[in-house]
Amino acid sequence: MRVRHKPWARGKLDRHSDIVVRSPKYYSGEWNEAFQREARLCVEIGTGKGKFIVGMAEKYPDANFIGIELQESIIVSALEKCLDDEIENVRLVNADARGLTEFFAEDEVDDIYLNFCDPWPKNRHEKRRLTYASFLAQYEYVLKSHGVIHFKTDNQGLFEYSLESFSQYGFLLQNISLDLHHSGDKENIMTEYEEKFSEKGQRIYRCEAVCSD
Amino acid sequence: MRVRHKPWARGKLDRHSDIVVRSPKYYSGEWNEAFQREARLCVEIGTGKGKFIVGMAEKYPDANFIGIELQESIIVSALEKCLDDEIENVRLVNADARGLTEFFAEDEVDDIYLNFCDPWPKNRHEKRRLTYASFLAQYEYVLKSHGVIHFKTDNQGLFEYSLESFSQYGFLLQNISLDLHHSGDKENIMTEYEEKFSEKGQRIYRCEAVCSD
Ligand SMILES: C[S@@+](CC[C@H](N)C(=O)[O-])C[C@H]1O[C@@H](n2cnc3c(N)ncnc32)[C@H](O)[C@@H]1O
Ligand SMILES: C[S@@+](CC[C@H](N)C(=O)[O-])C[C@H]1O[C@@H](n2cnc3c(N)ncnc32)[C@H](O)[C@@H]1O
Repeated sequence: MRVRHKPWARGKLDRHSDIVVRSPKYYSGEWNEAFQREARLCVEIGTGKGKFIVGMAEKYPDANFIGIELQESIIVSALEKCLDDEIENVRLVNADARGLTEFFAEDEVDDIYLNFCDPWPKNRHEKRRLTYASFLAQYEYVLKSHGVIHFKTDNQGLFEYSLESFSQYGFLLQNISLDLHHSGDKENIMTEYEEKFSEKGQRIYRCEAVCSD
Repeated sequence: MRVRHKPWARGKLDRHSDIVVRSPKYYSGEWNEAFQREARLCVEIGTGKGKFIVGMAEKYPDANFIGIELQESIIVSALEKCLDDEIENVRLVNADARGLTEFFAEDEVDDIYLNFCDPWPKNRHEKRRLTYASFLAQYEYVLKSHGVIHFKTDNQGLFEYSLESFSQYGFLLQNISLDLHHSGDKENIMTEYEEKFSEKGQRIYRCEAVCSD
């Protein structure tokens, strides 16, 4: 995602350390403490500007949500949405998702959301895709048994790749849609990218991968 | 497939018992005998008028092909194609694919082809779909370890269903294409239905499901 550099972003993130968790490792195995309640734990990777996670947090007030986003100039928009809507069940982590198994303990997470992650279409960049086997290994580690990865993309090649990658890794596929916005799914919450691509008339693909062991 | 009833079809099938196998059970475990040679065994279910199986047989002369088709007025067209092209590596079976585990022994088949099978879109007809679990159980039984089911369809709903069904049953998915005719796959051999639907501009979906045990 291209964004204007926001030199003030760091300061703003730091001032809201109740929402923006500085040391996610500190909470590993004890995320309920960060929310001061026991609840279903849902993690979004590559949260972007936060439209999805804030929408989910409002729709499911009984779940705890954590958004991980690499870029501070982007995650600061997610923070602003949380503040504007006075959201209490979202925490944000400004970090690389490659640290996932440090941030969460084994079997701690109920759901992982991957929305419109970068497609990295070239074969030689396969390892950067967030559905590459090394990432799936991390998801499997932090997910509970029968935990679910929820995946959406507009990118046909990435979707084909990801279905195969999930399957070959041993996840079981469910709730596949090859045209989500014409499937009559009324529960869907859109992301920023999803709005942009679907307005252009592109198909949105969705699947869920269940941790089978 | 709607076809004109051909009262002469039965007679023609009977006269060509070298190609149209009357008692497939008889060859169970010994299909090499029907071809009088040892070769890779490929089975197509719902062969229709035979364009695909004849194309495959010509492209892969070193493999043995068996086409199973329920309707005699349809399979007779496949027989005619075999005769016209003097095909030697195809046998036809005019029977219901539900008998698969009687026609083939355990671990006898290398590849199964399912092309544009009837979608049966209503939930209450799920069990009739050729990718329903009870059919997958039969495919698994007759397929060798690492044997492959090759599946093509134009029907979005059937494709979504089938990906999930293969995955949930324990098959591993590979070679997924969500738009086969724009994927640059030059090896693809078209079926009658495939030509008809792709001329109308419809997407063709393809996947392969590998028997993992
Ligand atoms: C294409 S954008 C999609 C944003 C949002 N999910 C949406 O659907 O609108 C991908 C986002 O993932 C973030 N990202 C990419 N790789 C990441 C990683 N390894 N860890 C955390 N965030 C990452 C990028 O900074 C970017 O904001
Ligand atoms: C929609 S047509 C497709 C024909 C061909 N595969 C093609 O792609 O052009 C489906 C075919 O499967 C046959 N069929 C349906 N159920 C079958 C079964 N249980 N056993 C054998 N053939 C079946 C039908 O008679 C029909 O010819």
